[in-house]
Amino acid sequence: MSQRIKINTLLQSTQTDVDVTVKGWVRAFRQNRFIALNDGSTNNNIQIVVDFENTDPALLKRITVGAAISVFGKLIASQGKGQTVEVIAETVEILGDCDPEKYPIQPKKHSLEFLRENAHLRFRTNTFGAIFRVRNTLSFAVHQFFQERGFVYLHTPIITASDAEGAGETFHVTNFDLANTPRTETGEVDYKQDFFGRAANLTVSGQLEGELGAMALSDIYTFGPTFRAENSNTTRHLAEFWMIEPEMAFADITDNMDTAEALLKYVIAYALDKNKDDIEFLTQRLLEEEKQKPQNERSEMSLTEKLQFCLSNDFERLTYTEAIDILKESTPNKKKKFQYLVEGWGTDLQSEHERYLVEKHFKKPVILTDYPKEIKSFYMRQNDDGKTVAAMDILFPGIGEIVGGSQREERLEKLENRMDEIGIPKDELWWYLDTRRYGGCPHSGFGLGFERLVLFVTGMGNIRDVIPFPRFPKNAEF
Amino acid sequence: MSQRIKINTLLQSTQTDVDVTVKGWVRAFRQNRFIALNDGSTNNNIQIVVDFENTDPALLKRITVGAAISVFGKLIASQGKGQTVEVIAETVEILGDCDPEKYPIQPKKHSLEFLRENAHLRFRTNTFGAIFRVRNTLSFAVHQFFQERGFVYLHTPIITASDAEGAGETFHVTNFDLANTPRTETGEVDYKQDFFGRAANLTVSGQLEGELGAMALSDIYTFGPTFRAENSNTTRHLAEFWMIEPEMAFADITDNMDTAEALLKYVIAYALDKNKDDIEFLTQRLLEEEKQKPQNERSEMSLTEKLQFCLSNDFERLTYTEAIDILKESTPNKKKKFQYLVEGWGTDLQSEHERYLVEKHFKKPVILTDYPKEIKSFYMRQNDDGKTVAAMDILFPGIGEIVGGSQREERLEKLENRMDEIGIPKDELWWYLDTRRYGGCPHSGFGLGFERLVLFVTGMGNIRDVIPFPRFPKNAEF
Repeated sequence: MSQRIKINTLLQSTQTDVDVTVKGWVRAFRQNRFIALNDGSTNNNIQIVVDFENTDPALLKRITVGAAISVFGKLIASQGKGQTVEVIAETVEILGDCDPEKYPIQPKKHSLEFLRENAHLRFRTNTFGAIFRVRNTLSFAVHQFFQERGFVYLHTPIITASDAEGAGETFHVTNFDLANTPRTETGEVDYKQDFFGRAANLTVSGQLEGELGAMALSDIYTFGPTFRAENSNTTRHLAEFWMIEPEMAFADITDNMDTAEALLKYVIAYALDKNKDDIEFLTQRLLEEEKQKPQNERSEMSLTEKLQFCLSNDFERLTYTEAIDILKESTPNKKKKFQYLVEGWGTDLQSEHERYLVEKHFKKPVILTDYPKEIKSFYMRQNDDGKTVAAMDILFPGIGEIVGGSQREERLEKLENRMDEIGIPKDELWWYLDTRRYGGCPHSGFGLGFERLVLFVTGMGNIRDVIPFPRFPKNAEF
Repeated sequence: MSQRIKINTLLQSTQTDVDVTVKGWVRAFRQNRFIALNDGSTNNNIQIVVDFENTDPALLKRITVGAAISVFGKLIASQGKGQTVEVIAETVEILGDCDPEKYPIQPKKHSLEFLRENAHLRFRTNTFGAIFRVRNTLSFAVHQFFQERGFVYLHTPIITASDAEGAGETFHVTNFDLANTPRTETGEVDYKQDFFGRAANLTVSGQLEGELGAMALSDIYTFGPTFRAENSNTTRHLAEFWMIEPEMAFADITDNMDTAEALLKYVIAYALDKNKDDIEFLTQRLLEEEKQKPQNERSEMSLTEKLQFCLSNDFERLTYTEAIDILKESTPNKKKKFQYLVEGWGTDLQSEHERYLVEKHFKKPVILTDYPKEIKSFYMRQNDDGKTVAAMDILFPGIGEIVGGSQREERLEKLENRMDEIGIPKDELWWYLDTRRYGGCPHSGFGLGFERLVLFVTGMGNIRDVIPFPRFPKNAEF
């Protein structure tokens, strides 16, 4: 027996008439003769040809969809169409049976909802194989982008004691017996007795700690899980998701935009190159799906075209104020087609507004800058106008906000005043303020929601389909 | 003004007599003339020469240790020793002052304990700059190793609903008001009303979910945070730490050992190459530290030598049974120097035993295999002897166990019997068992504790010093 070769390698093989061992899972078995075998290394199957006349019928019966098998045989140039090589089996060994009567993944089209309930098996389908290979490539591309530029990957903490950022509802982390939480003399929960000696929760962002690293290492990035305990049952929200958060010393908001745009283009180009077959498959999948929709709701571009389009165009950069002017004068606003009408300066933008700008007005990714300070976080750098902050959000077609960032307020007095204004406790963030006390400098950073990026590159419509085991209200299965 | 150049690039510059802009933090300022400037891109400082006679004294006063500055000037071949290039400053701009009276990081040696309490500033020291650059390199090397081999990076869930593995105390994750947890009619905590509709906790391992991915994609790995709510105040335990967990379909225990050994050698070699200066600095640091110890407690090898030694030697592979025989006959056992005497087969190995094998007996990394099933997890493949399982642990000098892994039990009946024997609820792990029902196959995997790896490569003695913001009992600061 020769050493096992993965199917993606075999399919690219130029050497034929050699003995090979190949292992994987049966995707189809036709005419008691042709096995389509997949091992997850590629979306493509290799064809195994079985000499059924000289094979034990009991063995043939066990070659069922989903079974794990090992095949030893000869790799030859294929006679059939659709593949260049195939394997003439000499021996087939069943490694693990799969009862076709009970196996949930049948050789037919399953709904995405059904596959979500069987997330432990959905990796075995073409769609999810492709999604998770693309997700893998995007992850690595993120790391490679930052490593090439000398950024230090920093593991910021998952468990934190402060929700000082006020980014939303957090999950509590505790070691208490929830049936019997210790109390102080006045009857309050006595967090001093908890594992960390204080109330703790799951992080909503690694940014504040990331800034601490940047104030010594110049450029850092995080790439880790973040959490929101929001009761949002939507196709765009998860309770647990992965974020990429670079922080750059000596960088202003323009450097910030440049880096974010370069990152997005780099990782999309990387996936288009590395996962050509997967993205082609997902492009076809989306075309099929859109055939169900009325003509006017279908995308103007295919998935591959949309990705290419992102690479070949500069993102449109404009201020929030300019965007409001465009939106006020827009047809859907005038005809009251927006659910939330844009009345004037100061209102937060809704998803429908973001998508109008990106998909209808500019027809390309958009970077909005200089938002009203009231609708942005305390740590964003205050502009000289006294009204806006040096924020920047990147909006993508079909996704809306994919990146949110800003130049950070490095001036201690302005930062403290803003914290006082909106009631953020300064004593809890003493360590954050220290970076402004001791050798602070202009710096910037942003957050990229990783699942939103994967959504964009795979063309999927529901964020629950681009993370292996999604967490959302009432669901923590697997 | 020219574009800012990072110091690691400047120091390698072969072109001199050019205008440069350099930004960073002052590490020292001697004779009102020589600034040692660091920007975190390297452990080395660049020397800035200030023409103090023609510089505003008020500005000179603000060039203090810790201050952030921007320097424009000419890069020239250095006259002084210790550096090949330096910058003759034309202008110095203070970006952020640093009051020398108040700045906690003084230009002197601080204790590691003090720096742990100032973890937000410790990145600014030589030691921690080096540690976190090495940590970064090791992280990337892990990804690159697996990507080169076609593994898929899988983000397994952080919040899980099962502690079925029974690996230890877990942290609860809840959305409840802890002062007032909802109750059922019988007075029990009503988890149905919690965010996930059931009790949830932080993961102790991504392995079980990782196996689900491997049973479709062939080779996967995780690299994410894991948690233990153990009240361990030691130099080797954290409540939050990062693990790397590959799972490989069609791989037996020998493949598993080969992969783990190759991974460790790959990432150590990568760091030695990429972080030569940092590891050299850490080697000197350790030599200085060991000078405080009595001669017989000092390491025989320096840090760099120890790392090189790991690369150039095959890890010693032997069974648990063989190890017990060696330990029983060992001098410290016979002379009752071990705290826990090795009486016979079946007992779990303590750290002192592991270190004896590695540091005294074999004097190199050791892989122990085939442990008694009673001291290992339910999912490990049962050997034919009925007593042992196909486990493998890798033991490292100074660290003890750095990798723990096994061939997984792929036979449904044997797996279920073992779960019944030790009382693991099968219904909670229906999805795990499904992989054995539907096309299971021989497969293997292991877990590598990332912080233990960083400890080994940096030569540090306390695990709290190799993760940016350590979490341990009574501590979740920053």
